[in-house]
Amino acid sequence: MERVGFIVQDKMISQAVISRLPRYFRYLGELKNEGIERISSQELSARMQVTASQIRQDFNHFGGFGQQGYGYNVNYLYSEIANILGLNEEHNLIIIGAGHLGQALVNYMNFERRGFIFRGIFDNNPALWGTTIRGIEVMPMDRIEQFVRENAVDIAVLSIPKDGAVSVANDLVRFGIKAIWNFAHVDLLLPKEVKVENVHLSDSLMKLSYMLASD
Amino acid sequence: MERVGFIVQDKMISQAVISRLPRYFRYLGELKNEGIERISSQELSARMQVTASQIRQDFNHFGGFGQQGYGYNVNYLYSEIANILGLNEEHNLIIIGAGHLGQALVNYMNFERRGFIFRGIFDNNPALWGTTIRGIEVMPMDRIEQFVRENAVDIAVLSIPKDGAVSVANDLVRFGIKAIWNFAHVDLLLPKEVKVENVHLSDSLMKLSYMLASD
Repeated sequence: MERVGFIVQDKMISQAVISRLPRYFRYLGELKNEGIERISSQELSARMQVTASQIRQDFNHFGGFGQQGYGYNVNYLYSEIANILGLNEEHNLIIIGAGHLGQALVNYMNFERRGFIFRGIFDNNPALWGTTIRGIEVMPMDRIEQFVRENAVDIAVLSIPKDGAVSVANDLVRFGIKAIWNFAHVDLLLPKEVKVENVHLSDSLMKLSYMLASD
Repeated sequence: MERVGFIVQDKMISQAVISRLPRYFRYLGELKNEGIERISSQELSARMQVTASQIRQDFNHFGGFGQQGYGYNVNYLYSEIANILGLNEEHNLIIIGAGHLGQALVNYMNFERRGFIFRGIFDNNPALWGTTIRGIEVMPMDRIEQFVRENAVDIAVLSIPKDGAVSVANDLVRFGIKAIWNFAHVDLLLPKEVKVENVHLSDSLMKLSYMLASD
């Protein structure tokens, strides 16, 4: 955990930089797979279609990772960014909402490969209780609290309609959840120490139709 | 289409502003539902947790929408933003990839309510051909071209693994698709006139774990 301590040393890393980190991680993973051991910021720039100076600036937030003129060691950079992204440890997830989207998320193998493990699935529909998705049982909502406390759950995924989402999110915070991945189409106003990442699919689709309309 | 012509009058609207439009639209829809007819930028600011000056600045990109000191007419603002977002006309969608995520997207009723209508579903798995999702038949990939040309399809949704995504996207562009909603975990390098909106779920989850790790 040393690195993490180092990173946050009183510096606020901007949302924009944070948003770019997973993309760096993805490209470095591809370079690794191709057997490439060293890459300059210019080469990485050409692949990723961002400027080399942007790359150097972004990396400087975390100490730089490389020597001027010598390029970056791909394996080292990959594992450093993995650490920064918190991928050096497993995360225990629960998901609230076992509808189509919830099922799709639980079935998405890439998350598990990165250490995000779905431990429990909850839904308020009694017809789903006792059914399983990838071997994980769907449980009633009133079992969330105990489950969270007993399974060191750190991330809750909300894939429910917006109507119940705010009150469920408040419950989750009360149960000790520290991070919510929110697919409900509503903004959650939670204590600052609770991290929220929204995926508003309708908003995303509207952005696309804006781009079409304004063309 | 007058409005659209007006909006883009040589002004580049920043991505940040565009990203906020669907959120304004969502809050205005809620105000409408609550029967609220007029709202000041201060009141809207308090609801949305953005500054009033941000709201005024954003709206000024599109001509302002209101009179100083008098507030915004909710219905008018709602329908203006709907127009800007291209929601005044229906969009014909196809989706490539009928796996769990594809099924979830086709089953998501909110899109249709906003005028995004799934017309065709395509998959390269023969076992799925002829099956239906919400009454829409899953078809083989080699029928995409004809279908796109015959059904005035303007948006293609890519919910396939990253390996095939780049070549499928290139095909789609060749077939005349003007916008791609990309869920494949890869960046698409397409001609500038083709609009791409990415939903990289793994990236989003990693951002959340970053926030947890850096806390």
